[in-house]
Amino acid sequence: MNLRGGRLQKKMDEEAAKFTSSLESDHHIFYADIKCNIAHTRMLAREGIIDEKTAHKIIKVLEELGKEGIKALKLDPSVEDIHMAIEEYVTEKIGEEAGFMHTGKSRNDQVATDLRLALKEKIREIQKELLNFIKVLVRMAEDHKETIMVGYTHLQHAQVTTFAHHLLAYAHAFKRDYERLKDTYKRVDVNPLGSAALTTTSFPINRKLTTRLLGFSDYMENSMDAVSSRDFIAETIFDLSMIAANLSRICEEMILWSTYEFRLIELADEFSSTSSIMPQKKNPDVAEIARARTSNLYSNLMSVLGILKGLPYTYNRDLQEITPHLWDALGTCYDMICIVRRMLSTVKVNSERGFELAVSNFATATDLADAIVMEKKIPFRTAHQIVGRLINHVIKEGLSLLDVNSSLVDKVSEEIIGEKLELDDDIIRRALDPHENVKRRNVPGGPSPRMVEASLKKLEAYVKDELESLK
Amino acid sequence: MNLRGGRLQKKMDEEAAKFTSSLESDHHIFYADIKCNIAHTRMLAREGIIDEKTAHKIIKVLEELGKEGIKALKLDPSVEDIHMAIEEYVTEKIGEEAGFMHTGKSRNDQVATDLRLALKEKIREIQKELLNFIKVLVRMAEDHKETIMVGYTHLQHAQVTTFAHHLLAYAHAFKRDYERLKDTYKRVDVNPLGSAALTTTSFPINRKLTTRLLGFSDYMENSMDAVSSRDFIAETIFDLSMIAANLSRICEEMILWSTYEFRLIELADEFSSTSSIMPQKKNPDVAEIARARTSNLYSNLMSVLGILKGLPYTYNRDLQEITPHLWDALGTCYDMICIVRRMLSTVKVNSERGFELAVSNFATATDLADAIVMEKKIPFRTAHQIVGRLINHVIKEGLSLLDVNSSLVDKVSEEIIGEKLELDDDIIRRALDPHENVKRRNVPGGPSPRMVEASLKKLEAYVKDELESLK
Amino acid sequence: MNLRGGRLQKKMDEEAAKFTSSLESDHHIFYADIKCNIAHTRMLAREGIIDEKTAHKIIKVLEELGKEGIKALKLDPSVEDIHMAIEEYVTEKIGEEAGFMHTGKSRNDQVATDLRLALKEKIREIQKELLNFIKVLVRMAEDHKETIMVGYTHLQHAQVTTFAHHLLAYAHAFKRDYERLKDTYKRVDVNPLGSAALTTTSFPINRKLTTRLLGFSDYMENSMDAVSSRDFIAETIFDLSMIAANLSRICEEMILWSTYEFRLIELADEFSSTSSIMPQKKNPDVAEIARARTSNLYSNLMSVLGILKGLPYTYNRDLQEITPHLWDALGTCYDMICIVRRMLSTVKVNSERGFELAVSNFATATDLADAIVMEKKIPFRTAHQIVGRLINHVIKEGLSLLDVNSSLVDKVSEEIIGEKLELDDDIIRRALDPHENVKRRNVPGGPSPRMVEASLKKLEAYVKDELESLK
Amino acid sequence: MNLRGGRLQKKMDEEAAKFTSSLESDHHIFYADIKCNIAHTRMLAREGIIDEKTAHKIIKVLEELGKEGIKALKLDPSVEDIHMAIEEYVTEKIGEEAGFMHTGKSRNDQVATDLRLALKEKIREIQKELLNFIKVLVRMAEDHKETIMVGYTHLQHAQVTTFAHHLLAYAHAFKRDYERLKDTYKRVDVNPLGSAALTTTSFPINRKLTTRLLGFSDYMENSMDAVSSRDFIAETIFDLSMIAANLSRICEEMILWSTYEFRLIELADEFSSTSSIMPQKKNPDVAEIARARTSNLYSNLMSVLGILKGLPYTYNRDLQEITPHLWDALGTCYDMICIVRRMLSTVKVNSERGFELAVSNFATATDLADAIVMEKKIPFRTAHQIVGRLINHVIKEGLSLLDVNSSLVDKVSEEIIGEKLELDDDIIRRALDPHENVKRRNVPGGPSPRMVEASLKKLEAYVKDELESLK
Repeated sequence: MNLRGGRLQKKMDEEAAKFTSSLESDHHIFYADIKCNIAHTRMLAREGIIDEKTAHKIIKVLEELGKEGIKALKLDPSVEDIHMAIEEYVTEKIGEEAGFMHTGKSRNDQVATDLRLALKEKIREIQKELLNFIKVLVRMAEDHKETIMVGYTHLQHAQVTTFAHHLLAYAHAFKRDYERLKDTYKRVDVNPLGSAALTTTSFPINRKLTTRLLGFSDYMENSMDAVSSRDFIAETIFDLSMIAANLSRICEEMILWSTYEFRLIELADEFSSTSSIMPQKKNPDVAEIARARTSNLYSNLMSVLGILKGLPYTYNRDLQEITPHLWDALGTCYDMICIVRRMLSTVKVNSERGFELAVSNFATATDLADAIVMEKKIPFRTAHQIVGRLINHVIKEGLSLLDVNSSLVDKVSEEIIGEKLELDDDIIRRALDPHENVKRRNVPGGPSPRMVEASLKKLEAYVKDELESLK
Repeated sequence: MNLRGGRLQKKMDEEAAKFTSSLESDHHIFYADIKCNIAHTRMLAREGIIDEKTAHKIIKVLEELGKEGIKALKLDPSVEDIHMAIEEYVTEKIGEEAGFMHTGKSRNDQVATDLRLALKEKIREIQKELLNFIKVLVRMAEDHKETIMVGYTHLQHAQVTTFAHHLLAYAHAFKRDYERLKDTYKRVDVNPLGSAALTTTSFPINRKLTTRLLGFSDYMENSMDAVSSRDFIAETIFDLSMIAANLSRICEEMILWSTYEFRLIELADEFSSTSSIMPQKKNPDVAEIARARTSNLYSNLMSVLGILKGLPYTYNRDLQEITPHLWDALGTCYDMICIVRRMLSTVKVNSERGFELAVSNFATATDLADAIVMEKKIPFRTAHQIVGRLINHVIKEGLSLLDVNSSLVDKVSEEIIGEKLELDDDIIRRALDPHENVKRRNVPGGPSPRMVEASLKKLEAYVKDELESLK
Repeated sequence: MNLRGGRLQKKMDEEAAKFTSSLESDHHIFYADIKCNIAHTRMLAREGIIDEKTAHKIIKVLEELGKEGIKALKLDPSVEDIHMAIEEYVTEKIGEEAGFMHTGKSRNDQVATDLRLALKEKIREIQKELLNFIKVLVRMAEDHKETIMVGYTHLQHAQVTTFAHHLLAYAHAFKRDYERLKDTYKRVDVNPLGSAALTTTSFPINRKLTTRLLGFSDYMENSMDAVSSRDFIAETIFDLSMIAANLSRICEEMILWSTYEFRLIELADEFSSTSSIMPQKKNPDVAEIARARTSNLYSNLMSVLGILKGLPYTYNRDLQEITPHLWDALGTCYDMICIVRRMLSTVKVNSERGFELAVSNFATATDLADAIVMEKKIPFRTAHQIVGRLINHVIKEGLSLLDVNSSLVDKVSEEIIGEKLELDDDIIRRALDPHENVKRRNVPGGPSPRMVEASLKKLEAYVKDELESLK
Repeated sequence: MNLRGGRLQKKMDEEAAKFTSSLESDHHIFYADIKCNIAHTRMLAREGIIDEKTAHKIIKVLEELGKEGIKALKLDPSVEDIHMAIEEYVTEKIGEEAGFMHTGKSRNDQVATDLRLALKEKIREIQKELLNFIKVLVRMAEDHKETIMVGYTHLQHAQVTTFAHHLLAYAHAFKRDYERLKDTYKRVDVNPLGSAALTTTSFPINRKLTTRLLGFSDYMENSMDAVSSRDFIAETIFDLSMIAANLSRICEEMILWSTYEFRLIELADEFSSTSSIMPQKKNPDVAEIARARTSNLYSNLMSVLGILKGLPYTYNRDLQEITPHLWDALGTCYDMICIVRRMLSTVKVNSERGFELAVSNFATATDLADAIVMEKKIPFRTAHQIVGRLINHVIKEGLSLLDVNSSLVDKVSEEIIGEKLELDDDIIRRALDPHENVKRRNVPGGPSPRMVEASLKKLEAYVKDELESLK
């Protein structure tokens, strides 16, 4: 099938054909294209636009092609794209009549429809894997509700928390990522078919019917918009970029925590590599690669936005270059979710080290300040200053927070506010003990085992409901 | 108020203080910070955590500050940020007691809360301007339902449409932009307050109450997530980038259409500039600047994503650098929407030129192919080839499409399929006339005046409902 | 060869192995890796670090492998990378002795060396194609020194120029692109080999010798820097991005100029496509695709910079993810240069249309203003205002600039400055005639045929010299 | 001065004027613009194009303005830009005659000239600060040639090195950054003046003279290229981005090393902050902010490239939007260099901790493998396996590397290769001692104090020479 026979008299230059061909990534829309052609042909026949018999022949061949798979097609750059290859296949089987399937349809609306059909499935797959990740996090959190660790700000010890509480922070980020995709799905799930090249057609096609046959929630309401908009792709890739960003933060923590210096976790051998020259190494390569690939997703997004900028209406061939970024981003993100989930779920948590760090560097200091406020009703800023000065003393004299007692506190408080606080030693000790400390942070969203338990129950139910809804 | 008195013994280096200060963009959260402090203080008192009287004093001073405005604060880099400046203000008015307002609260949850409070309003503003833009487009479309113009693909003449139909393509893109912001809003509208530094607090605070007082729909369910996530900012800036991309496409068309070569529109003098050296120029500067600024929005997005990549939990000072991109992006996008809308609404449409182009370069050729299919029941691809060859003849012989008649069609069809088509001359003429042509594309989403009328009525109702809902 | 036998007890997870493998892009460094191994082995033997005979065996096998090509290797993800695959190949041929070739060497310095070796050749290829492009432009310019066209600012008619002058603007941009690569080459052409994993080695290796054997200009002076820096890749991709940006500007002009509205050029059939539904179309697909791919190059750059941000020393697996962007960018850019050059060199220039536009829209108006300044010694701004007003008159009365005469000028000048200018009609006519106009812009860098001739002679000589130097 | 008096009849819309004004960033080119006007006017007079007396008056006023500074100008959006403001100033002082300074000149060539003039100075400033940074690193390295620390790959302990060696890795990255700017400078240092709007002028201007007067090395050879190319800006910002990337890697290490877990350095109080709620914190805010701002520089680059993509020749107002990114990037980068240098130069290095880490986690293991190869002439891969297995034993039995002796080695070697190695205990100990280990890596580029000393001497001389050349 050579479109050029009419207007253009010379064949396209071979290099140019290769340069402009979309075949390399068209396999992603092979099944969608068949589905789209079948629905359109069925509609054409039902509306009496083409002959019922012809339609029947076309659909039969298309269904056969669907069974045979893409290998049945002749795919070389001279064919331009999958749409032409499929048409050629049908033509070879039933002759010129095949051409009727393109009545009132163009590659412009067809490719837009194919992309949306294929993307809808891919979004569902990513959504499922996100829910599975949350499930894994919930399960791990269940085991670590009492596993003490330091929470960091500025990568400095801040306050004491539990490993479970930290894992649920990841889970909540993924929950938003999941919901973002759910919203995006609505904007993908609309049908451009019937827009033809850009202004619909003079054939009396039935857009409601193809919309129903293809399982879209509605058709797109302006044909020029329908063939030239790719915001649904940019939005999807943004969502994937955000997922990747969240994964990269987890990877960063896996890398940090598995250093000799932190030693909070040990990665499973299956997710580590060693060195060709340094036999003692155990490297977090999976986490590093995943961290790096985050940049690739960002770049997919930038490419798409960059291509769209200043592009006049309606279809321009530039739009073709957007598509590979979509498939690329979906593949990268899917792989990242699965591998990071598996890497994380196989780490060995070093809970002694977690506790050791929690008591060695003043992470419970805020609670001492809070206790002073509660007991003595002095403003927090003042308590903060007292505790700050106290830490300086402790460091200078080589002590630990566990050595802090009432008389030491009083010494400092006299310096700062000119009077003693006379706190009970027991109050001081309880404020500074990590387990006690965590239990007292019993506010919704907080690390106390009770709150964490409530939170993970809610997540569990959420995941169950959503997985159900995706079926 | 100097936080450093405790732990750190030397003042921050002056350059370092300047380098790390967020004051330059903190004015955006001035009112939100006051609101947040008031709600928190009110809650503390109601839960009996601080003294009712103290709370009363603090709130009164905060309310006064709200009335006086940001100029009442001492803002120099040594103050670090707006939170410290406001605390200092309250402290100056009521003394040390001011410190009680920070009980069970940290700058980490406070800044996250402030950002969300301020952003919620800004999103609403952008949403309103988008709806106003759609309104303008609908109004313009009403006037141009019969204004013929060429629709382009690959910037080549493709098919005939109307100016109204084209304007509605813009409108539908903005409708999606609007809905995207609506979805994003849900994820902004959740309350991090109560998360404190990262693990909530041992004070028995009431997060439901502050959530209600601040008008959030819910509180965030994990405190570590609450203080360290900025996906709501990335998502907002993505939405704005998408709006900008859509605006840039309109601007590109304004620039093209106002060239001497296209002459489809004339920009109003108020939105053009001239040259310092070439007195004949009338330059579309507004459209050019808006087109260019699209890149700035993309870059805001990239900065935010770049900062988030691989950032360990929880708060890191890097997060502060995200915020200016948000305000910048909101400002740029808001300005772009308003100015492009006004530029577009003041153009003079050159409808004669629209018609002239529509008849001069075969834009109605597809319809002739369609007519051949309808009348003669031959496959579309064959009809396509006949018309392609026909155009070559017409060009070679210096004719126009209006010169095409039955015998010319037959001459070509004999070459291609070996037989005459014997079409009625009248059918040929009707297929090629732009007005007739447009009328026949009477499919939902198409350019026929009837379909366009239906479409703009729906948009009008949509805008009305949504504007109502934003009140 | 399994590195894991020592430290790690379980095999890497299959998905993880696939996820972290670099094999997909390692074919780019196959020959470089052989070359690098040979040079290193030769040096080890010459310095007496390994046995001369062992070295001889290793080198012989490596040379054979070079002849057989990459297909001789077993490449599956379990092999990790090309370095291991090559070592395994040598081991199979000569047994355990193969291991001696890695004495005092690591994959970290080896991959850095391979990349630089392979990149040096690729940069030369791009440089040659740039020079070829300039050659084509010079040849075309030779033919079009008198072909009048309008020069645009803001896409509005600005002043008259020639097609040759415009083509040389492209040439000068490419000349800078070429020189930028030349500068980059210097920073690529340094040898990291001998840095081993990160801190060199205790074997007494001879870095000067391997530097000479591999043809580098010098070795890198700090081993930690040598294995962890990838700025040479970022810089190369920036250079390629800049080339792409320049190509995209040319493509944009090809797209604009081949519209029905501009009609300044006609693309060759071989570099155009038509439509599946609109038989009259002749689409500039090559230019559109090239324009879009520019974004891909930008994204390659962003990925690399994104990966490098905040990466601690020294080697991290993230660096591996940088490399595919390099090969990708080189391939995309190379293809773009070649195809745009061929597309441009086959366009048909419509010189009548060029002239027609030059006389129809006041593009020579500046020269009238200049003539007034020269003749009457009044300030340019005043002359500018007179000509501006004059154009308004001409438009309002439906005249053309060729109708302008002395009395019309005087009428306007009286309005503006209150007195007549009494210019000679002949001076007016000469200022407004495009050919005359161009000839008078006889300043270095200007469009006068004499200046253009001088300029293209210089470029011709430059290209010749540089092509010579690349041999 | 209102340019609009001629062609456009209505004033620009106020919002549009604000939207399109460049005044906000024009202060960067104030002095350059004066310089440019003076040189041009001087040339006009010398070539007899304008009256000597007029020129004298204009120059005198411009010189006065230079002394008064930018505050002497009326800068409101209605003025459009600095060029018009300066012209207006001159006009107010000497009347209409001021207009003569624009003879044969346009804002298009003038702004391009101004940008290059101002940028040349800014590049020099950045270059100087880079040299100063290298100086600081050399000075610090001088003090730390024997300060043992672990070198990392994959953030895992790899091999032992010295702090000095590590600092010189930074220095060499900066050296390349410096040289890159030097190359860029050549492409900035060319003169566009005389190109006028786009096609030079019919006035017989002398471009060589203005080139000399302005201190450029040459003039640009094609006027259309000269007014529409901004690659010199993109290239500069790329260079700055690369500097930022290198700085961000240093910052990342400062952040890591100052954690409680690493404890390799302590930041000076002057470059740290504390927390409003956690009194024990000492946060590396400066390093965090600098790390984050790296993304801003990348975004500046992306904006510029994004704006250039697909922009037709010649001047388009989009180009104006490029400029603020340049000033922004220069400012950000300059600040980052200075502050990171000062932060780094004030850290306290914890050399005991460096040594402690060096002996605790097998970082010298490679050397044991090397020693086995040297002594026993067995292939490295085999030695690597033996040492790997050895480490497993050591870990399992809770020993340290310092406990390794000949009999333990033999036990493992029998497992792997079936025979004992019978290494001298002394050889084993020497291989494993960090100081000994470092001394033996006496290869150019390596960490041995002798090599480091040689390297820093070379750098010292380099910096001295280059600082001299910048004077």
